Amino acid sequence: MDVNQDVETVRKAVRQGEWCRPTTGLAPGYTQANLVILPKRYAYDFLLFCVRNPKPCPLLEVTDTGSPVPRQTAPEADLRTDLPKYRIYRKGVLEDEVTDISGYWSDDFVSFLLGCSFTFEKALLQSGIPIRHIDEGCNVSMYRTHIPCHPAGVFKGPMVVSMRPMKSRDVIRAVQITSRFPSVHGAPVHIGHPEEIGIRDLTQPDFGDPVTVYEGEVPVFWACGVTPQAVAMASKPDLMITHAPGHMFMTDIREEEHAVL
Amino acid sequence: MDVNQDVETVRKAVRQGEWCRPTTGLAPGYTQANLVILPKRYAYDFLLFCVRNPKPCPLLEVTDTGSPVPRQTAPEADLRTDLPKYRIYRKGVLEDEVTDISGYWSDDFVSFLLGCSFTFEKALLQSGIPIRHIDEGCNVSMYRTHIPCHPAGVFKGPMVVSMRPMKSRDVIRAVQITSRFPSVHGAPVHIGHPEEIGIRDLTQPDFGDPVTVYEGEVPVFWACGVTPQAVAMASKPDLMITHAPGHMFMTDIREEEHAVL
Repeated sequence: MDVNQDVETVRKAVRQGEWCRPTTGLAPGYTQANLVILPKRYAYDFLLFCVRNPKPCPLLEVTDTGSPVPRQTAPEADLRTDLPKYRIYRKGVLEDEVTDISGYWSDDFVSFLLGCSFTFEKALLQSGIPIRHIDEGCNVSMYRTHIPCHPAGVFKGPMVVSMRPMKSRDVIRAVQITSRFPSVHGAPVHIGHPEEIGIRDLTQPDFGDPVTVYEGEVPVFWACGVTPQAVAMASKPDLMITHAPGHMFMTDIREEEHAVL
Repeated sequence: MDVNQDVETVRKAVRQGEWCRPTTGLAPGYTQANLVILPKRYAYDFLLFCVRNPKPCPLLEVTDTGSPVPRQTAPEADLRTDLPKYRIYRKGVLEDEVTDISGYWSDDFVSFLLGCSFTFEKALLQSGIPIRHIDEGCNVSMYRTHIPCHPAGVFKGPMVVSMRPMKSRDVIRAVQITSRFPSVHGAPVHIGHPEEIGIRDLTQPDFGDPVTVYEGEVPVFWACGVTPQAVAMASKPDLMITHAPGHMFMTDIREEEHAVL
């Protein structure tokens, strides 16, 4: 499949099982989203958690209970089939990885679509700011911090951040660019001193891969979409379904539509 | 009371019954908020309605069920006593106006604090853009539009907008200024042609007062915080408590903290 297809063609290929790989670079210009599906009994607390912590948990859409259709962001899509890979968790333990969740679907499921850093990374690249983990062909470095999230019901835990090292002259521009996108994590949460937010060793990320930080570079930290998944998992819900890492949901929303300015 | 007191002093005066008038101009620099209190059984749908319609319903905080303390925006405050006037609605009908709701309080109440246009009006004034209803000493003009909100459970209805007329040279600056504040309604939803959003006659607002629109002036429309109240009322919940118009809750959050840029 040509990755430069429009988003409907790409989703159709995914739905028909013709694309089961990560979605990076697919349907350029369209927003990709993190997915968390929970039974209704957890939905109020989880929704409240996201509302109270908009930087790590930027809500793009919450579906009607039982509906697999994201009416606001992709009314022709079906969340049961239109992601290339899903993860099934029971009581916080990974049980399976599947390419279709129709067999798991229940009328009491609520689906949460959350903004993803792919959107702001593209904006950084377009401004000439290199992204180290892309250049090194690996996953972004992510760390648990000691910044507490605002708890909500059964959901609580620290903020997880992603880190991108850059030349100090690029830091100011990176703050400006990502500030335009509050619905996809927005401005950084910290610049320069990992120990101040509870990170001891940049070479040992809690999630993802380590990347090279060159002499004179500044580590810049953004609130990370792994936070809501980590928090949900820690509360050990009977059942939770998420996208598999990197295998995102592709919405109909143009990335530039998320810019507030 | 000197209106230029700090926010804690003002809230204490309100709590002790020494101030029962509108809050306009009190504790300058601090964010004032709309209040909607609903029993828990309505809270999920109402929260979802706000999340799906962030321009008319910008959530500043949602309290824990049963708690009158807004921990994120004013941890020392008490929502039962710290607003100068409240309205009690039963099944959508105004039953009473009171200065203290301690007698109505229930352990299943959820309180929603929503951003208020006072914040962006001040930013407009500080940029030298006059606000007509302030100059004319009346309430802002508000209109029901034919722009549908995204429904959520029992809550549905059209967007209500507020209108401020201005010289065409001020419109661009007004868009820039209010775009900085997405959590207090953000950029306008329409400029210039009321009939395009379902408004027939500017001199007959559905809420508030009519204001003078001078020859050559452009009407600019913003999503309005009356929307969530109108929508909640239309669904006739058994009980709903709100602030009385203009009698807002004063938070500890500086207005400038809401600027994304």
